[in-house]
Amino acid sequence: MSQDLKTWPHHELGKELSNWGRWGDDDEIGTLNFVTPQKRVRAAGLVKTGRNFDLGMPFDKDGPFLPGGFRVNPLHVMTFMPSDTAQAPDGLITADDMVVMGLQAATQWDSLAHVGYDGRFYNDVPVGTVKTTGGATRNSFAKAVEHLISRGVLLDIARLKGVDRLEDRYEITAADLSAAEERQGVRVESGDILLVRTGWYQWFLEGDRAHFMGDEAGPGLDTCRWLHDREVAALALDNWACEIWPSQLPGANIPFHQVAIRDIGLTLGEMFNLEELAADCEADGASEFLFCAPGLKVTGSVGSPITPMALK
Amino acid sequence: MSQDLKTWPHHELGKELSNWGRWGDDDEIGTLNFVTPQKRVRAAGLVKTGRNFDLGMPFDKDGPFLPGGFRVNPLHVMTFMPSDTAQAPDGLITADDMVVMGLQAATQWDSLAHVGYDGRFYNDVPVGTVKTTGGATRNSFAKAVEHLISRGVLLDIARLKGVDRLEDRYEITAADLSAAEERQGVRVESGDILLVRTGWYQWFLEGDRAHFMGDEAGPGLDTCRWLHDREVAALALDNWACEIWPSQLPGANIPFHQVAIRDIGLTLGEMFNLEELAADCEADGASEFLFCAPGLKVTGSVGSPITPMALK
Amino acid sequence: MSQDLKTWPHHELGKELSNWGRWGDDDEIGTLNFVTPQKRVRAAGLVKTGRNFDLGMPFDKDGPFLPGGFRVNPLHVMTFMPSDTAQAPDGLITADDMVVMGLQAATQWDSLAHVGYDGRFYNDVPVGTVKTTGGATRNSFAKAVEHLISRGVLLDIARLKGVDRLEDRYEITAADLSAAEERQGVRVESGDILLVRTGWYQWFLEGDRAHFMGDEAGPGLDTCRWLHDREVAALALDNWACEIWPSQLPGANIPFHQVAIRDIGLTLGEMFNLEELAADCEADGASEFLFCAPGLKVTGSVGSPITPMALK
Amino acid sequence: MSQDLKTWPHHELGKELSNWGRWGDDDEIGTLNFVTPQKRVRAAGLVKTGRNFDLGMPFDKDGPFLPGGFRVNPLHVMTFMPSDTAQAPDGLITADDMVVMGLQAATQWDSLAHVGYDGRFYNDVPVGTVKTTGGATRNSFAKAVEHLISRGVLLDIARLKGVDRLEDRYEITAADLSAAEERQGVRVESGDILLVRTGWYQWFLEGDRAHFMGDEAGPGLDTCRWLHDREVAALALDNWACEIWPSQLPGANIPFHQVAIRDIGLTLGEMFNLEELAADCEADGASEFLFCAPGLKVTGSVGSPITPMALK
Repeated sequence: MSQDLKTWPHHELGKELSNWGRWGDDDEIGTLNFVTPQKRVRAAGLVKTGRNFDLGMPFDKDGPFLPGGFRVNPLHVMTFMPSDTAQAPDGLITADDMVVMGLQAATQWDSLAHVGYDGRFYNDVPVGTVKTTGGATRNSFAKAVEHLISRGVLLDIARLKGVDRLEDRYEITAADLSAAEERQGVRVESGDILLVRTGWYQWFLEGDRAHFMGDEAGPGLDTCRWLHDREVAALALDNWACEIWPSQLPGANIPFHQVAIRDIGLTLGEMFNLEELAADCEADGASEFLFCAPGLKVTGSVGSPITPMALK
Repeated sequence: MSQDLKTWPHHELGKELSNWGRWGDDDEIGTLNFVTPQKRVRAAGLVKTGRNFDLGMPFDKDGPFLPGGFRVNPLHVMTFMPSDTAQAPDGLITADDMVVMGLQAATQWDSLAHVGYDGRFYNDVPVGTVKTTGGATRNSFAKAVEHLISRGVLLDIARLKGVDRLEDRYEITAADLSAAEERQGVRVESGDILLVRTGWYQWFLEGDRAHFMGDEAGPGLDTCRWLHDREVAALALDNWACEIWPSQLPGANIPFHQVAIRDIGLTLGEMFNLEELAADCEADGASEFLFCAPGLKVTGSVGSPITPMALK
Repeated sequence: MSQDLKTWPHHELGKELSNWGRWGDDDEIGTLNFVTPQKRVRAAGLVKTGRNFDLGMPFDKDGPFLPGGFRVNPLHVMTFMPSDTAQAPDGLITADDMVVMGLQAATQWDSLAHVGYDGRFYNDVPVGTVKTTGGATRNSFAKAVEHLISRGVLLDIARLKGVDRLEDRYEITAADLSAAEERQGVRVESGDILLVRTGWYQWFLEGDRAHFMGDEAGPGLDTCRWLHDREVAALALDNWACEIWPSQLPGANIPFHQVAIRDIGLTLGEMFNLEELAADCEADGASEFLFCAPGLKVTGSVGSPITPMALK
Repeated sequence: MSQDLKTWPHHELGKELSNWGRWGDDDEIGTLNFVTPQKRVRAAGLVKTGRNFDLGMPFDKDGPFLPGGFRVNPLHVMTFMPSDTAQAPDGLITADDMVVMGLQAATQWDSLAHVGYDGRFYNDVPVGTVKTTGGATRNSFAKAVEHLISRGVLLDIARLKGVDRLEDRYEITAADLSAAEERQGVRVESGDILLVRTGWYQWFLEGDRAHFMGDEAGPGLDTCRWLHDREVAALALDNWACEIWPSQLPGANIPFHQVAIRDIGLTLGEMFNLEELAADCEADGASEFLFCAPGLKVTGSVGSPITPMALK
């Protein structure tokens, strides 16, 4: 329990925007419920040229994490090599591999079991439902996997502001989102998967992990109501925290995550590479596309590594 | 080098069906080149009702592998728990997790670096390009990831034969594939991702791992020319080996894999759950859909875990 | 908190035998304090012939654990192979490897952070000192590692009872320990590391994992006072639980562990292979030796894999 | 095969010093054969005061490896937490953990399967005996584990030279070893486990990983004959490579390893913390002790993590 619950403004906001019970007491996917079959049909209809954009960060030892932290870069190891079939009469060669990785390593989804507060996750789920052995028994990403195909919309806040990348700790506001819509001639609708570009991914592309993983631009609490009202299904950014870091609210820890994930029931995506897609959207004036990033159905998982795709 | 290269019939067949050089000497994705932008546009156009089918096996400790083999079931572990933020002033709780798993654990793609013979992989790539440190430096699955969205077609061989599941070691032939097309009123075309149902997945659903991982029904060498001529982009089955096991060719090891992957350049999928999708195709008479299973862009990877989706 | 604390007889016993505070409020190693420098000098003096006995179970995929449980057998993987140095001008070949394993896989020590009750570990350490990230911040095995060299004494309860191995669920009593001392002509003293043989390891050697990991013979609560009074430094058995399983006390979970580890502060060892050593002790009539099993200093660890050695 | 075998001076030296066949064609432990039972008896007799020195580096995420290399620091994860037994009627709490680590992470032994040249490991073992699945089928560390208890002797080259730590790339010579013996009044004998101090470990203690893992002082090829003639059983240093790095022989890769491991059959130890032990040896004038570092019996292993102990 937080020390003085009533005084935390993000918790007050969360109460206002809460979607608990909206899709029943047993619901585990929150705003992904906005991705209806009809939504998917319309999303598929956006594919006009068949161009495909890979929005994923590679999973490998040269990933974003600095040494010594609690998240580590993926470890890829071979488990079978061509030399292991040297005796095959017909000359067979074969290879197998394995990976040791955080489900939050590189490009990823945060499920509704990832963040909560005051002992509760989304939809009044008690903290004890996440177990060391077995993982998330409620709100697991495994429940979300099939819902992550919908219309994608990109809002480019860096271009809105006329910069390559936003400044450290720039707070993206609801007004920014609306202004980006207006500039790009697109409107975020119910069931959309919203991709917000800060330009932050350029730090990673340039090899500056310390800056990429440092104080970052991102949405502030101010955007929560906007995201709630527009019925966004999932939100993804091109930085590591999916929100301004550190928070501008003293004493609060990732308050945007708290409200977005726990109260609104919003699945969040991190470390998306939006550079090429954004350039294309700017070039052709079309900021909507078929977005597809189902991830992996790992039982009890809190998150999922993904290589997301956008088809235009 | 195999003991007497000229006498192996599957290698003779492979020479005939070889796609080496067809897309240039540097090509690393083989028949996935058939998935053109135009193909993706047409595939997206197949989404009529928005119903989504999850074709994935869960990734967890209760996976298909029996103890003692070289492939093991996924190990999911929590790396951060709500108790770790007990001191957060605002009551934050959060969870993180990791996985240790073969990239061939459960539902998966085999890349063109997975199988070859006589010291060569697809497109004349030497065996030494697969390294213990770094993995596949050529033909890696990381190159394939963005190409695995296309039209999917399901051919149901079990229903063709009027059985729940095919018999152990039943060899699926080219004639079976053509007969299934005729029965279902669909024709496999260039760039399709072909899903072939044997009913084998039922052994897994029933908990009989030993049977599921044992002698199985699947395509024989006879289907290679058919798959080549139809310009299939990728092939996936609902069993563990994607081909009849053991081979009917004495002394040969997974000869279908050898020809399909190394010579034709065909990406193979394994352990797809086709039960629900097949029932739906039978019910509505539509065996085509938008298929989406991009997998994970793991640098140097030979395969990829996936949770594939079919949208109708 | 247990439902009705006062009524649990093992907790009453624990209170009587408690060593909390005996070596100061900051002590983290409990009865390993009995292993004094003088004790080590005398233990070294027991080496008469230089014969060495390996008491370890191999660490590999064919370990004791059945599939589906929360403990899994070790996974050993190569990370560097001779083929990776194929370009070395001077013909260098080299190999490296890694392991994924539970610190409780195969032969192992349980530290004082492994088991407690009513929210407390040994020496009044609160449950929250074990963290998901960082592990045991108190009572970690890392603190114990240098103390696990002392005089070892083997008591062979199977031979005492005239059997190859004890019956399932046979409860070893204090009287058994004393009788074994008398039969073998040895007396357990302060600072000894006591090895108690049930013959159970034979189930593993015969490949019967299910029996090995099943209901087992082992010490009951009755032995706690004896172990406490004799000032045993550490206790190890040749079975998986180091105590009779299941407990004969209805509703109690590994009550011997609870009292031994939490209250007495006794480090426990499991899955020791005592077969060869016991035969030698029987043959030469000497049941004491220099025992050495320091284990690994893994920061925050709760246990340690070991390959223990006995020198006579 | 190296490009011009006859011209490599370290291979010429290796031929001269070869112990192949000395202990039979099936021998897999090389100079560890010098550790006879009699040797162990005499070693145990060295324990006079019972003081124990822990020579190990902690195994954890803050280990010596810089990011991006093929060796990574250990990853310790909890697999069972007290919260997982919240329902236990008697209040039981318990914790379990696991580790993902290179067997060469932190303080470790290199087995005779670790390094060779020209397609052969120690005792004419072909390169193909190291398999990706299964590891080292010959010369595995699992064979060595019980032999790593013997007399230990410390030679302090840093103190010999009057410095805290040797300069980068200082080459330790046979003359240095003899001079250190003379200064310390000790003589290295058959079956000894020799610890050579460079002072290099101080870089690690100071947190300068880049320097610790960089160009280092260590034995050159010149010491091989000395080590061979003295019948050293195993050699360990306080740096990462156990030899001068980079080699002073142009084009040669870790040539000391090649001769020592492959030709002499000498087990090598790395990253030993000799600081405290060396100070004690200097203070009391006794440079010999009972050395004990059996390591882990991992089937097929090439190396082993250890926490070595020295008893005086």
